[in-house]
Amino acid sequence: MTFVVDFSRSRGAVLRPVAVAAVTLAGRFWGPRLQRNVAVTLPTQYDLLESTGRLNNFRRVTGRYDGPYAGIFFNDSDVYKWIEAASWAQAAGPVPALQERIDAAIALIEAAQGDDGYINTWFSLERRHERWSNLRDLHEMYCGGHLIQAAVAHHRVTGSTRLLTVARRFADLLCEVFGPAGEGKRVMVDGHEEIEMALIELARETGEPRYLKQAEFFIHARGHGLLHGGRMGLDYFQDDVPIRAMTCLCGHAVRALYMACGITDLALEREDAALLDRLGSLWTQLTRRRMYISGGMGARYEGEALGKDFELPNARAYTETCAAIGSMMWNHRMLAATGDARHADLLEWSLYNGMLPGWGLDGRHYFYVNPLEDDGTHHRQAWYDVACCPPNVARTVAGLPGCVYSTSAEAIWVHLFIEGTARIPLGERTVQLAQRTQYPWDGSVAIEVGTAGSFTLHVRVPGWCDGGASLAVNGRAVLQAVEAGAYAAISRDWQAGDVVQLTLPMPVQCWQSHPRVHENAGRIALTRGPLLYCVEALDHPGADIEDLSIDTQAAFESRFEPDTLGGVVTLRGTARIVPRDAAWDDALYRRVQPGKPDVPPGGDTVEVVAIPYFAWQNRGASPMAVWLPRA
Amino acid sequence: MTFVVDFSRSRGAVLRPVAVAAVTLAGRFWGPRLQRNVAVTLPTQYDLLESTGRLNNFRRVTGRYDGPYAGIFFNDSDVYKWIEAASWAQAAGPVPALQERIDAAIALIEAAQGDDGYINTWFSLERRHERWSNLRDLHEMYCGGHLIQAAVAHHRVTGSTRLLTVARRFADLLCEVFGPAGEGKRVMVDGHEEIEMALIELARETGEPRYLKQAEFFIHARGHGLLHGGRMGLDYFQDDVPIRAMTCLCGHAVRALYMACGITDLALEREDAALLDRLGSLWTQLTRRRMYISGGMGARYEGEALGKDFELPNARAYTETCAAIGSMMWNHRMLAATGDARHADLLEWSLYNGMLPGWGLDGRHYFYVNPLEDDGTHHRQAWYDVACCPPNVARTVAGLPGCVYSTSAEAIWVHLFIEGTARIPLGERTVQLAQRTQYPWDGSVAIEVGTAGSFTLHVRVPGWCDGGASLAVNGRAVLQAVEAGAYAAISRDWQAGDVVQLTLPMPVQCWQSHPRVHENAGRIALTRGPLLYCVEALDHPGADIEDLSIDTQAAFESRFEPDTLGGVVTLRGTARIVPRDAAWDDALYRRVQPGKPDVPPGGDTVEVVAIPYFAWQNRGASPMAVWLPRA
Repeated sequence: MTFVVDFSRSRGAVLRPVAVAAVTLAGRFWGPRLQRNVAVTLPTQYDLLESTGRLNNFRRVTGRYDGPYAGIFFNDSDVYKWIEAASWAQAAGPVPALQERIDAAIALIEAAQGDDGYINTWFSLERRHERWSNLRDLHEMYCGGHLIQAAVAHHRVTGSTRLLTVARRFADLLCEVFGPAGEGKRVMVDGHEEIEMALIELARETGEPRYLKQAEFFIHARGHGLLHGGRMGLDYFQDDVPIRAMTCLCGHAVRALYMACGITDLALEREDAALLDRLGSLWTQLTRRRMYISGGMGARYEGEALGKDFELPNARAYTETCAAIGSMMWNHRMLAATGDARHADLLEWSLYNGMLPGWGLDGRHYFYVNPLEDDGTHHRQAWYDVACCPPNVARTVAGLPGCVYSTSAEAIWVHLFIEGTARIPLGERTVQLAQRTQYPWDGSVAIEVGTAGSFTLHVRVPGWCDGGASLAVNGRAVLQAVEAGAYAAISRDWQAGDVVQLTLPMPVQCWQSHPRVHENAGRIALTRGPLLYCVEALDHPGADIEDLSIDTQAAFESRFEPDTLGGVVTLRGTARIVPRDAAWDDALYRRVQPGKPDVPPGGDTVEVVAIPYFAWQNRGASPMAVWLPRA
Repeated sequence: MTFVVDFSRSRGAVLRPVAVAAVTLAGRFWGPRLQRNVAVTLPTQYDLLESTGRLNNFRRVTGRYDGPYAGIFFNDSDVYKWIEAASWAQAAGPVPALQERIDAAIALIEAAQGDDGYINTWFSLERRHERWSNLRDLHEMYCGGHLIQAAVAHHRVTGSTRLLTVARRFADLLCEVFGPAGEGKRVMVDGHEEIEMALIELARETGEPRYLKQAEFFIHARGHGLLHGGRMGLDYFQDDVPIRAMTCLCGHAVRALYMACGITDLALEREDAALLDRLGSLWTQLTRRRMYISGGMGARYEGEALGKDFELPNARAYTETCAAIGSMMWNHRMLAATGDARHADLLEWSLYNGMLPGWGLDGRHYFYVNPLEDDGTHHRQAWYDVACCPPNVARTVAGLPGCVYSTSAEAIWVHLFIEGTARIPLGERTVQLAQRTQYPWDGSVAIEVGTAGSFTLHVRVPGWCDGGASLAVNGRAVLQAVEAGAYAAISRDWQAGDVVQLTLPMPVQCWQSHPRVHENAGRIALTRGPLLYCVEALDHPGADIEDLSIDTQAAFESRFEPDTLGGVVTLRGTARIVPRDAAWDDALYRRVQPGKPDVPPGGDTVEVVAIPYFAWQNRGASPMAVWLPRA
């Protein structure tokens, strides 16, 4: 499904998954968040599915509700995403309040499905004759894909085949209607990718190769202009260039990333090295030219699009929360296909700095758009008319345990550093592991091996680590040089109780942008460990954050503040308040004055406070900036 | 109308107009352009009105064409704008080819008007029952406004009342249907402003005060949320705040500027000082915070909107050509209302640097969007599906003679410097003036007074002039200090043959941006006289213009090149080619390296060539930039 995918039998997978149910996350950072997802986020979202008419849209199909269809045409997908999220959230054990709601929703879905397997509440009753008539714009297969992902999650967690049966019937209908012209079928694709990865995961879950073949058809039918004639250009739908000729990801960011997920799934199943190579090139191009420092993607409001190389406006960054999630999903797959630590690096970076800002600390407010600079007018909302992001956040958080570890032959891979325990199947054995760490606030990670045996432990050393990482087993250093952005491998005959100690220094780091990102010229961004930081005006009363010029030579102090923003490490550094040049009050442009510096000298020196970017706009409205002028 | 408005009896007008027909423009710059408008632009546009079905839409209403309606719902307005342009183009004398086409078009329009005065080809036949049903989105009054402006121009130039009669009947219908609720009328406004200024000009042309009152109703009905419920917020339509409480122009740029025109017309007619004061504040806010250095306005693609203060992206500048024209129209009115040279300054600046780039040198290709930086992929087009800009350019060029002069009691005002002759009514007399100048290439302007008499000549000394301007009469200096951004007044008893010599030094000037325009940090723009310059890659073979770092201390050479771009002054200066830092090939972000400069030292020194911004993208595709890194 979305985020946690079962590569256990994928021919091309280098790494095998460890199931969500096998991993329990706890600790100061993720423990409360996973609880909040169950106790606040999922219940409030279900209430919104009800109050916004999304569930009534299903009741309406069977005559149990006689009002009009509510909301936008792809509202079914929010119900499916919620079921998927609530299913993962129960991997560790049933939560009755969630289970009841899942069952109620599934009952509505079952009842709304047609005899032929079709299901979509928008295209029912008065619009039933419009089915499959506008796949370019109306998300029929997109909704179906989310149904499938929900069904797979529900089946995997509960063992129930109720929703899986619904999903299979819809998938069977797709296989019947769409396919090669030579087979007498309709050659068409959906305007919003999603069905591709869903069908492949359904194939994995059911063992039915037909679904993989169907996804393969959709993937290769794309890029030939089938979606022509609409208001948007073909690139918006990634329908201008076939995947095997594609040189960059373009158009609508979420669609492009969901497409990449489906293609990576295909490469994994087919062991298609050429396709994987193409995906690797696209990944490189995207991350080197079209990605915010937050990991966010999608620079443009218009078309919710990726934009051109180096087009990365800060205040007008679009960077939809779903795009960050799409990037996590893609990197999760690329990691399985390659074992390359850069994918785990970006997965983690996007988790903390791309997705997490979209989820308010109260668990019930969300960002759809994630600017990297704001004048204090951008606020989280409890819901959106286009509500893709809130349930996407919920399913990502709920599925997170499935991203922490992988296995390969006689080896366990540790990708993420989160306190908790795991029971990891390795060949015939089950290896118990436990992590103890205050990560992301502190770079000390103790991994206790609870089961004796001989295997290799691959521990990720994050790419953000700028030297000084060390590894010890039972207090004794191992490995001479620990390379950042790679996995450190420790092979030994483990004894129960062995402790691997990973130590990652977390100094404050100052970053600069490629010179072609004009907006960031002369500016720096601050990070510490896996976290991007920002400055909020409310921490700087009396100063305008636009006037803060950061002294990157001065030392920054990192301080854990338990009462700030639920407990965060803040950074404190030194900044100069650039004196206001009153001449600018009356002008937008002026003649260059020879010998006069662009930035006036003088001005008070003040302490600048930075907070993690994921936590911004949780203390009321205030201007915010990630990129700050450098003294 | 649009651009040239008859303030001759407006109570609040400080300056009175000099009619288009009274002024003949010639000279190396504007002479060929006005001819091209008549010989190329207007004929090709008429052919497009025909080939795109815009004229057939009129024939269709009366059964003379039986195909479907062609194109977008406001296509009628393009026909009207073309008639207006073609009418002005004949002010100096009939052009048979144009006259025949105008007559043919008017015959179609007359026939398509309903008995009740209604006319709009979209809302005819199958959609006649949808009339006035969605004023928010469907531009019915906008089209009507353009009909009125065309009719006034046609009447003023030809004396014919044919189209004026059509326009009056439509205006009468509006007066009947819309108005205060207390009068039993419908309280509603059009989503796209235009009707306001049109009705006021119709009142001026016909002497009928009812049209002024109707415009006044529309103006004050706006800002109260009548246009709620659509996809766009109220600010998009300027319907969120009433004019008397408005603190900035917001939303769709063209609409905001057209609104400002109508309100200024109202202030002129009503001699409403409070309203004029409010307009002055809006003008100041707009020009100091939301205007490109080109005079272009409208920073955002989404909503074609003005954007926030200091939001001025270069490559993604929207800056619709129509917005620059809207700014010219507004400044034309503000100039009449105030006599303040800053409005003439901006009118001229927008003419050369905002509107003119939208008109290809071949006279038949247009920009809708005018970026200030481009990677070589932005091209002029022969037409657009939304074709507002091309006929807007044509009517602006055709009406230009009416913007050169004004009068007040015993005074003549010279606003623009364009070679040509004028017969200017002044009280009972007609004063002949002639200008001889190579402006905008050269700052020497000779104004010959051809009629004896006593009056004051107000000569504009442009705000771009950075000192050194001088004025002489018959070779003798007059005025001790000539202030830039003001009118120099010369009162005397003129003899026929007196020559006023204005000399405006035209050094190359380097400009910088307000520090809050982050993208322009460390960058400069070049101007000379009234022209903004840019750099095109095709003048710099072997170099990437992104790597050019301009030495603002070195001298720039200005050189008239008769064979370049139809004859332009180019600027030649010195730049360093910043050596490529190969480390950036593989990264978008990197850690700040202490002691290492952001911009590498060294690199070759080369000649940099700048051309007038209005002339860019006329020699094929090539990257372009207005804002250049400063060494």
